[in-house]
Amino acid sequence: MGRLIARRPVLRLGPDGDRSRPDSIAVEEPLELRVDGKPLAVTMRTPGHDVELAHGFLHTEGVIGGVDDIHDARYCDSRDDEGRNTYNVLDVGLARGVPPPVTGVERNFYTTSSCGVCGKASLDAVRLKTRYSPADDPVRVPFDVLAGLPDALRERQQVFDRTGGLHAAGLFTAAGELLVVREDVGRHNAVDKVVGWAVLAGHVPARSCILIVSGRTSFELAQKAVMAGIPVLGAVSAPSSLAVDLAHESGLTLAGFIRNATMNVYTHPERIVLT
Amino acid sequence: MGRLIARRPVLRLGPDGDRSRPDSIAVEEPLELRVDGKPLAVTMRTPGHDVELAHGFLHTEGVIGGVDDIHDARYCDSRDDEGRNTYNVLDVGLARGVPPPVTGVERNFYTTSSCGVCGKASLDAVRLKTRYSPADDPVRVPFDVLAGLPDALRERQQVFDRTGGLHAAGLFTAAGELLVVREDVGRHNAVDKVVGWAVLAGHVPARSCILIVSGRTSFELAQKAVMAGIPVLGAVSAPSSLAVDLAHESGLTLAGFIRNATMNVYTHPERIVLT
Repeated sequence: MGRLIARRPVLRLGPDGDRSRPDSIAVEEPLELRVDGKPLAVTMRTPGHDVELAHGFLHTEGVIGGVDDIHDARYCDSRDDEGRNTYNVLDVGLARGVPPPVTGVERNFYTTSSCGVCGKASLDAVRLKTRYSPADDPVRVPFDVLAGLPDALRERQQVFDRTGGLHAAGLFTAAGELLVVREDVGRHNAVDKVVGWAVLAGHVPARSCILIVSGRTSFELAQKAVMAGIPVLGAVSAPSSLAVDLAHESGLTLAGFIRNATMNVYTHPERIVLT
Repeated sequence: MGRLIARRPVLRLGPDGDRSRPDSIAVEEPLELRVDGKPLAVTMRTPGHDVELAHGFLHTEGVIGGVDDIHDARYCDSRDDEGRNTYNVLDVGLARGVPPPVTGVERNFYTTSSCGVCGKASLDAVRLKTRYSPADDPVRVPFDVLAGLPDALRERQQVFDRTGGLHAAGLFTAAGELLVVREDVGRHNAVDKVVGWAVLAGHVPARSCILIVSGRTSFELAQKAVMAGIPVLGAVSAPSSLAVDLAHESGLTLAGFIRNATMNVYTHPERIVLT
């Protein structure tokens, strides 16, 4: 895990005095994503699984619909001041015929140009972009299975165990079988890496799957689940209003505060079967 | 708190069966920030203190140096589909002679054009942008004061108490006196609102002040503290590698895991006085 964890000196202060020791810290580095050579976005991320991150980001932004829409992905020759490749610039070549992404700050919000900037316009933008909808996914998930998934995710958070500094996302089957776990300093990156894994594995739309996130659920995380066709999103903490509204409208089952064998189900509880 | 908290129905599932009730949810809405009429950024935020948010964002991005660099700030006439002003578009007019911001994905990373995209280039970009440095701030903070600030912040998190869904940031004096607390669904927004409060109050550079954040410390949060001239940044959870590196280089005292009368001090511990 050479690029996931860094060592830094730390002074531990407490009632028993002070103690100096090296500490394990989660690595954060910029990643510039280019599409056909043109810069699209810069995200601060934990290095590793960058190709998945790019696939997941481009899929959840509506640029690609599946793995066939990407021709190749390679690190550019970006050098630090000691001449080493930084592996922080990734250029994705789109397959022939795939339209390039729209750039600019307006891209997420002005696809419905008649409307102002508001929550509803944000929901409309997702509806226009998504190729899959979880609305007609008939999957049923036993309550006991869903209630146990945050602990299953937590057990796989290897870097968190050593640093306390990473968000995590995991994709599971409706029977509770783990498909993939990813960790990152950015929670949106952790979800993009999971979705990118699914894109690369041909698992998108991720029908009948459950996405679990280690923290709260924002609009952006709910959007990523919807775009990937995931029918159930569960979180350890609270959702935002716009996450609940998007889940309601999109047919996504959204659960939060999954702790101690209880949970709050905000939308589409019909998929959760009491056992 | 009309626009801070929304009510949504929730189904509470647990060992004792299910119970339906209305729940309090933290509001998330898009805010488009314009400068002199030109769109600069869209952020998903909790409504309220938007003028502070704009001042803090523009200050920590290096666009403005103080309150005199902004001529006016007003909500644009953005309407939802029922004709109501969304109060989600804020246009900031810069004072005469203030250069407009550079836009585009490269703006944070290519100010040092000879270098690749890497952590060091990110640090260099902050060094070039900042007008204030915490490096020569001689403030001393008693250990007991710093150790108690996360609890003092937590006591003021009114919306978190009702929703569990908000990040918080607070600015304190070196004696532990509270100056301002702000909550938001985005942790960077909470810090921008605090810094914007300081800009509007003429408290920037925020010499001798302590910034406390409710979660982890990323590069971006450390950057905002440095840009505002804040000498001490304390967090309840872990920092990232790039946050530690920026704090080390900038003369910022960075503490994490401030819990149960202990803390980890990653950089510049000389400001913390054991009592």
